[in-house]
Amino acid sequence: MSIAKTPTPPYYAVIFTSQRTEGDKGYRETADKMVSLAERQVGFLGAESVREESGLGITVSYWDSLESIKVFKELAAHKEAQENGRDIWYSTFGLRVCKVEKEIIM
Amino acid sequence: MSIAKTPTPPYYAVIFTSQRTEGDKGYRETADKMVSLAERQVGFLGAESVREESGLGITVSYWDSLESIKVFKELAAHKEAQENGRDIWYSTFGLRVCKVEKEIIM
Repeated sequence: MSIAKTPTPPYYAVIFTSQRTEGDKGYRETADKMVSLAERQVGFLGAESVREESGLGITVSYWDSLESIKVFKELAAHKEAQENGRDIWYSTFGLRVCKVEKEIIM
Repeated sequence: MSIAKTPTPPYYAVIFTSQRTEGDKGYRETADKMVSLAERQVGFLGAESVREESGLGITVSYWDSLESIKVFKELAAHKEAQENGRDIWYSTFGLRVCKVEKEIIM
């Protein structure tokens, strides 16, 4: 994963910053599934994801509309992943929904 | 650095995703200076930053307004850093300016 090839703004971004707890506990498998799930969603424009050795990570996903973000949020498999995220995988996280107004890609 | 303690939206985010070239070449010192510079700016609300061993990194800075982002962008020291970023430190990058509409911090 590198820099997402997004269209001319406006579009939407979900910034997910998270601190992982110790140990995998099924995280990796679900994280990969959620990427595949997003990639098959209507309105998904791309994603960028980085996690340090310390367990701190930032994933930004890009979407064509708030409606597409909502549809993805409400998928059953994603809701189950969100629950495990809160309970098991993350000690803390921040999730922000944004409208992208300008972009420069070089 | 962990999850930024941002106010109730709306506010603004700058998502900077970048791939570092090999070697430091003065990068670390300037990166630290740019964080200090941002922290002293009016309108700066916090930042989150992660970089992997591969050199891929995401830094998100939060701001109260587009005007504050513009003032920071135009600072002389920052403009010099941007130039070195393009020429020396990054093989590729994406910079996106966004309006944060919703947030969940847990």
